[in-house]
Amino acid sequence: MCGTMKAIVKKESAYGAAMMEMPIPEISDHEVLIQVKATSICGTDVHIYNWDDWAKGRVKAPYIFGHEFTGEVVKTGNQVSRAKVGDFVSAETHIVCNQCYMCLTGQQHLCSETKILGVDIDGCFAEYVKVPEQNVWHNPAQMPVELASIQEPLGNAVHTVLHTPVSGKSVAIFGCGPIGLMAIAVAKAAGAVQVFAVDKNEYRLDLARKMGADHIVDIGKDDPVAMIKQLTRMEGADVMCEMSGHPVAINQALEACANGGKVNILSLPERPVTIDITNQIVFRGLTVQGITGRKMFETWRQVSELLRTNTIDVQPVVTHTLPFEDFEKGFELMRNGTCGKVVLIMPSYQRGTK
Amino acid sequence: MCGTMKAIVKKESAYGAAMMEMPIPEISDHEVLIQVKATSICGTDVHIYNWDDWAKGRVKAPYIFGHEFTGEVVKTGNQVSRAKVGDFVSAETHIVCNQCYMCLTGQQHLCSETKILGVDIDGCFAEYVKVPEQNVWHNPAQMPVELASIQEPLGNAVHTVLHTPVSGKSVAIFGCGPIGLMAIAVAKAAGAVQVFAVDKNEYRLDLARKMGADHIVDIGKDDPVAMIKQLTRMEGADVMCEMSGHPVAINQALEACANGGKVNILSLPERPVTIDITNQIVFRGLTVQGITGRKMFETWRQVSELLRTNTIDVQPVVTHTLPFEDFEKGFELMRNGTCGKVVLIMPSYQRGTK
Amino acid sequence: MCGTMKAIVKKESAYGAAMMEMPIPEISDHEVLIQVKATSICGTDVHIYNWDDWAKGRVKAPYIFGHEFTGEVVKTGNQVSRAKVGDFVSAETHIVCNQCYMCLTGQQHLCSETKILGVDIDGCFAEYVKVPEQNVWHNPAQMPVELASIQEPLGNAVHTVLHTPVSGKSVAIFGCGPIGLMAIAVAKAAGAVQVFAVDKNEYRLDLARKMGADHIVDIGKDDPVAMIKQLTRMEGADVMCEMSGHPVAINQALEACANGGKVNILSLPERPVTIDITNQIVFRGLTVQGITGRKMFETWRQVSELLRTNTIDVQPVVTHTLPFEDFEKGFELMRNGTCGKVVLIMPSYQRGTK
Amino acid sequence: MCGTMKAIVKKESAYGAAMMEMPIPEISDHEVLIQVKATSICGTDVHIYNWDDWAKGRVKAPYIFGHEFTGEVVKTGNQVSRAKVGDFVSAETHIVCNQCYMCLTGQQHLCSETKILGVDIDGCFAEYVKVPEQNVWHNPAQMPVELASIQEPLGNAVHTVLHTPVSGKSVAIFGCGPIGLMAIAVAKAAGAVQVFAVDKNEYRLDLARKMGADHIVDIGKDDPVAMIKQLTRMEGADVMCEMSGHPVAINQALEACANGGKVNILSLPERPVTIDITNQIVFRGLTVQGITGRKMFETWRQVSELLRTNTIDVQPVVTHTLPFEDFEKGFELMRNGTCGKVVLIMPSYQRGTK
Repeated sequence: MCGTMKAIVKKESAYGAAMMEMPIPEISDHEVLIQVKATSICGTDVHIYNWDDWAKGRVKAPYIFGHEFTGEVVKTGNQVSRAKVGDFVSAETHIVCNQCYMCLTGQQHLCSETKILGVDIDGCFAEYVKVPEQNVWHNPAQMPVELASIQEPLGNAVHTVLHTPVSGKSVAIFGCGPIGLMAIAVAKAAGAVQVFAVDKNEYRLDLARKMGADHIVDIGKDDPVAMIKQLTRMEGADVMCEMSGHPVAINQALEACANGGKVNILSLPERPVTIDITNQIVFRGLTVQGITGRKMFETWRQVSELLRTNTIDVQPVVTHTLPFEDFEKGFELMRNGTCGKVVLIMPSYQRGTK
Repeated sequence: MCGTMKAIVKKESAYGAAMMEMPIPEISDHEVLIQVKATSICGTDVHIYNWDDWAKGRVKAPYIFGHEFTGEVVKTGNQVSRAKVGDFVSAETHIVCNQCYMCLTGQQHLCSETKILGVDIDGCFAEYVKVPEQNVWHNPAQMPVELASIQEPLGNAVHTVLHTPVSGKSVAIFGCGPIGLMAIAVAKAAGAVQVFAVDKNEYRLDLARKMGADHIVDIGKDDPVAMIKQLTRMEGADVMCEMSGHPVAINQALEACANGGKVNILSLPERPVTIDITNQIVFRGLTVQGITGRKMFETWRQVSELLRTNTIDVQPVVTHTLPFEDFEKGFELMRNGTCGKVVLIMPSYQRGTK
Repeated sequence: MCGTMKAIVKKESAYGAAMMEMPIPEISDHEVLIQVKATSICGTDVHIYNWDDWAKGRVKAPYIFGHEFTGEVVKTGNQVSRAKVGDFVSAETHIVCNQCYMCLTGQQHLCSETKILGVDIDGCFAEYVKVPEQNVWHNPAQMPVELASIQEPLGNAVHTVLHTPVSGKSVAIFGCGPIGLMAIAVAKAAGAVQVFAVDKNEYRLDLARKMGADHIVDIGKDDPVAMIKQLTRMEGADVMCEMSGHPVAINQALEACANGGKVNILSLPERPVTIDITNQIVFRGLTVQGITGRKMFETWRQVSELLRTNTIDVQPVVTHTLPFEDFEKGFELMRNGTCGKVVLIMPSYQRGTK
Repeated sequence: MCGTMKAIVKKESAYGAAMMEMPIPEISDHEVLIQVKATSICGTDVHIYNWDDWAKGRVKAPYIFGHEFTGEVVKTGNQVSRAKVGDFVSAETHIVCNQCYMCLTGQQHLCSETKILGVDIDGCFAEYVKVPEQNVWHNPAQMPVELASIQEPLGNAVHTVLHTPVSGKSVAIFGCGPIGLMAIAVAKAAGAVQVFAVDKNEYRLDLARKMGADHIVDIGKDDPVAMIKQLTRMEGADVMCEMSGHPVAINQALEACANGGKVNILSLPERPVTIDITNQIVFRGLTVQGITGRKMFETWRQVSELLRTNTIDVQPVVTHTLPFEDFEKGFELMRNGTCGKVVLIMPSYQRGTK
């Protein structure tokens, strides 16, 4: 498995990306090589493409980016026991140290030494990608590749929504990007009695409705706090999922949360946020929970089972399926916000499905 | 509000029951009088009707039995503040002491001094029933009376299934009486990925299918342990809800439970049960949880919201709606097991709906 | 029980307080009248005395303030069943509505309609105080009155520290006022393996040492984040108790908290606080928990049992016991920070103990 | 590191054991070789020595038994990264599969494929023992070897007692063998307000007192249920730790548990036990929790920190420290029950300490 492959490369420390020929990765004893069938574009990839402040501080060009994918194992390291050639897999994208207290106690998603696929090391916007065997997740044979590819961000949604029980409760999702949209479906599938979807992008609020949101809160027109309170006996919603990263939204999420409620924050605000701790958190007994990554591998099991049994339907969030070569169009859609999830299908798989 | 009313009375310490004229209850300062619109028959009522060993030991004839109902407040005690005449209500049936440590810490459902409506004191198989104001639960105006009446047993199902999270997990329900049937719907609504329904009664297994069970386990033909394991990668199901009371079923529930799983027992086995604690509970790290009543009033809120928002559909479990006068037919159906839930509609409400 | 009594009164909307004759309170059906034996001064009382911005916005003079106390029931309302004349009691100071969802689900400490004794209504800096019967807590006969009086703030400490398990874990207390000092003792009694006490007041850091703190962090000299990390393998402490209300301390508490750790905030920062949500809360999976009041009555039981069995020793925190008449001296000590807890002994009890 | 070593060998399928020369184990890529300094005798070892029914069914002679120990790493496999020569270590004794869902979700102690050191494979009653690197636990340099050796059973005690919070609660320990005795110390250190120690062996009840038990229940004279209830306002104790394995004790533990309480079972009753599920578990809302092994490695961290900081003192439980060669005397003490923990000191370490 030597030779070269097509890959989307962050070539230099500047805006944009290029499709280039790159060497196929070589694997070590505990790694597997996977032929990518489909890969999807994350908001993080757009930051890298755009070369914003965060990207400048974190990422070292040149390298291959991308971290959401599915594919087939084509080669395994000498010590690999959990995967074999031919397996249909996706992968956890956090590569952890296995040594620290977090790793030793089943909290690997909080390992401080985490390296992220496609951010800190070469990623999956390529015909082949290598990952440690412990990162491999096996998919059911019949799972469509576009769903298999988006399990990683769906895992973020599942981790956020299901961090505390939502059955019989009201849930508000702030921010209807692809993860927020999937969170709506997760909350409904998990028995939330009322799901509020808060955003200002009409395209995405339309999608929110398709994902099952009970109440659409368009912040261009509606006051989220007033609207949520009014529809919850003036108590507020029980569980808030913050996926916007916007300081105003974060404060609204706190304010619209019921006493004793949960505010699960997955978003990454660009700057520190000013919060009324006394009146919004302390007197009202709120729990503010930081959420990052996916529990390894409890979240993956939940995601996999929710999809396998059709308990959740996230098809509507996959609004665009493009050939790998059309990645520039995918990035443009993402920048415009006129899409849900964009999945790129690899040339080999395009051939394979004919 | 003096005078008499029609009531189903356990007249004497013997099999059967009689419809009789009884005085309308008088209320004290903290009680409310409710005109019953609909009342439903519980398995407990059948024990009382049949006058089995449990009934002989617990119940003192003559008295009015029945504890599931809905109706309208027609009179309130002097100190009542939580209800007013005209309110459409149901009621928690556990009347607690308000003094013990359980009552003082939000665990009233575990109060040792509990008196049960229709078991220890006069119940709701009557045109009027009185309850303490703190037992009142308000219903949305548009809720059908047959659903409003069965919220109490639905609360048992919700309390049992939602005691620990089931979203993304597999759940097995042992025993498909009315509460087991409702538990199936609760588990599906709460995002259980696979629900197993275990019973031997064909009528009820048919209902189980209608309630959304993914796998029907007919213990006349199937081995529950083998079947559950086979459909769960040989791990077992994550959450077991024991609603049969049968010693064999209880042992099967333990055996078919995944390591680290939960066994929630609502049933009341007639005799002590012999259990392999070492191999089934200790080595496998199971949690066996006794479930009784409903959390006051967290469970009631969940029930009410699940119904109000149509997150759950328990209509199929109400197989029979009969006039109050036909109670003997209702008891016969219950004894035969050829029914789900039997709801009796009161004469006043029959008139009212015409 | 008519006539007048001595009371410390916030006489007008200005700095200071006065000891005056006031009418003995009249009780209604569900209230009890308590003859106060001892009462203690809280930081809140100092705010009221000082007439700061918070006091100006919340408190309506003239009225009797004070909320920490113990005493003997001398009269009971007609409907009272949980207390009788002669009972030795303390009292929960949050008077709740009993109607809202928080009150109906065992979370009365989060009732939005709460009225606080000595803040919103007449308090216990007086020879007699009335409280609703449901607020009464019974003390063991042999409990010293100065301990019986400080159970309310000790309850804050217990509620904060024991919100999540601390046994075998490291705990940092930010702010060593009386509640912070008691929190040290609670954490040690509960099996915390390392307790850090953070403050700048030398008098109180000395007390912190007496209460059992393992590491004294004097922010005049030490860097709390560096010191806590260094003594916890650079991981940070597992549980942070924020009792200072200072924005810098709050950010340090977040930064010095271990990944996946808990930050329990009891303090009431005067202004909104700016927080690095992304790097301190989200990426590190922290749980920030607002803590208010005491769980009714789980916390009271814990406090009572910890004291009764001498599992905890909070005597060192009671640095001053003064006659009621010397309240001005007590307030001066509190303003200077040269005290732990100041307890005022009532004249009747002073006589009684001779 | 070839050659032979002294080891206590279960030579044949019969009563007894023999000290013999055995080959020093050879290690593979992920294993480490440890020179044993101290090893302690567990009740399980007595079963193996005595060759009872359980041993006959589980153990295959000839092999080296023993699983509690501490020592120094003397050789590491090629792929080992978590340990190096010279490290002072103990070891988790459950060797798990790393492949199953339990292993993939931080619940390795519930892995169904577990092999136990000294039970299923060669153990540590020897001068050298090999373990997988992931089983190694590092000790602080100054930890006495007899404490370092008993961390494994202390981990059972910690896992059982701390499964749910005990601070401010009453705890009853049924069975005062070495693990029960250590559980007493753990409960006291964790802030249990009352600890009941239940046994019939006077020697061990004396030790229970030394470990800090508040109430000694001698079942030869006292009725555990009556005594526990009487000292807990007739409510029962909050948390029961079942470490006796006796069916009568198990039923008493259930009966003496407070409503809503926890019954944590670590013991392994020889035969199925008959339980009144209805009255003891269901109506009273008990949680019965099976406990096995130690959480990897949350429990190890707790144990290590409790010892390092002297938060817990388990020295009194180590009643006998014998030279390795005197193992027969150690087994005799264990059979007679006239000991707490018996620790064997290895010849090399005896020399080393001179």
